Amino acid sequence: MRIDIITVLPELLKSPFEASILKRAIEADLVEVHFHNLRDFTTDNHKTIDDYQFGGGAGMVMMVEPIDKCITKLKSEREYHEVIYMTPDGETLNQSIANQLSLKENIIILCGHYKGVDQRVRDHFITREISIGDYVLSGGELGAAVLCDAIIRLIPGVLGNETSALTDSFQDDLLAPPIYTRPRDYKGWKVPELLFSGNFPEIEKWREEKAYEHTKNRRPDLLKDEL
Amino acid sequence: MRIDIITVLPELLKSPFEASILKRAIEADLVEVHFHNLRDFTTDNHKTIDDYQFGGGAGMVMMVEPIDKCITKLKSEREYHEVIYMTPDGETLNQSIANQLSLKENIIILCGHYKGVDQRVRDHFITREISIGDYVLSGGELGAAVLCDAIIRLIPGVLGNETSALTDSFQDDLLAPPIYTRPRDYKGWKVPELLFSGNFPEIEKWREEKAYEHTKNRRPDLLKDEL
Repeated sequence: MRIDIITVLPELLKSPFEASILKRAIEADLVEVHFHNLRDFTTDNHKTIDDYQFGGGAGMVMMVEPIDKCITKLKSEREYHEVIYMTPDGETLNQSIANQLSLKENIIILCGHYKGVDQRVRDHFITREISIGDYVLSGGELGAAVLCDAIIRLIPGVLGNETSALTDSFQDDLLAPPIYTRPRDYKGWKVPELLFSGNFPEIEKWREEKAYEHTKNRRPDLLKDEL
Repeated sequence: MRIDIITVLPELLKSPFEASILKRAIEADLVEVHFHNLRDFTTDNHKTIDDYQFGGGAGMVMMVEPIDKCITKLKSEREYHEVIYMTPDGETLNQSIANQLSLKENIIILCGHYKGVDQRVRDHFITREISIGDYVLSGGELGAAVLCDAIIRLIPGVLGNETSALTDSFQDDLLAPPIYTRPRDYKGWKVPELLFSGNFPEIEKWREEKAYEHTKNRRPDLLKDEL
């Protein structure tokens, strides 16, 4: 898989891709991630990538031309399955979208900034608009990092233990049950005895019950389909 | 405002806080952000912070003791209004939670990792569990960075133009209308003429209509309360 990220702040994205699972996935050649600085696709001395809104109003707008140049150059080099724009009004990212995208070969992710991009970018270049949630961030970079992390960890071979991702929250529409590790007793706070019983069918049953109960209390919306 | 982030991967968090708005907010003393490496609160030579799950199952669990030590030390130094745990099964972050949290004085954010933390951490130390969305990430660090960004940009003085945050998506339950900047005509793709009319009441009306239309098409759930 190859991911090309178009941004005005490549330096912001640096550390998340140099640590932990993303780093390992890149080093193991399971994924290639390339950053493209939008300012490299400007033609003026000031490397201008934004300008005032037509019609007035606060906040700057990212111009269509540098984005067009960058995307067109990338597309001339290979085929892309999706050109994604990170924006708070996109479709909300969920595990099923992450699963889908983890199967694509080449994708471009455009990070919005300021008030966002000129509408003509969205109309003519973008194939998919994704939001990581109903809140506003200062730019699309963190959203892009989140999207990459959600996708990349699903690529086979990235996580050490294949079953680990499958027992995550959301993969079966249930939140995860409580988990415990040593010590058995910490300042009087004890781990449920059942977990030491060695009775794995019972433990599995307990976990399913707890997962269901936890989901029902906290996220009844996830259970909707089962009612 | 002071934010203390407890993590096993402080290096992952570095660049988002050294760029853009977060950097400016920190430099202007509008917010203090401190990273605490959980491994500094271990007592063994291997600096162990995780262990196998009791009862079996894939994935490691973060132990209660180092987390207790770190949180207890911080609490001995000042009062905290929230001790937040970033976890996919927490309450889903939205703009109203970000607004609320931007008014707090001191908060701790604990980043989960691996399969998550020992349940006793959640039962005894955490005051609020937050998810940035219905998807799983390889750790809570990106979630913490997202949460910080969403909060910090709301602190008065952080954004250059105060009105800029107020016209964002979600602040009024409407998605933003389309925006345009120069050039007026790009490869035949034209900006709507109205935006050059100078008729600001008409432009405002057009924007409201477009915002409503866009929200109705893409996120009818946001309009629920108005029906």
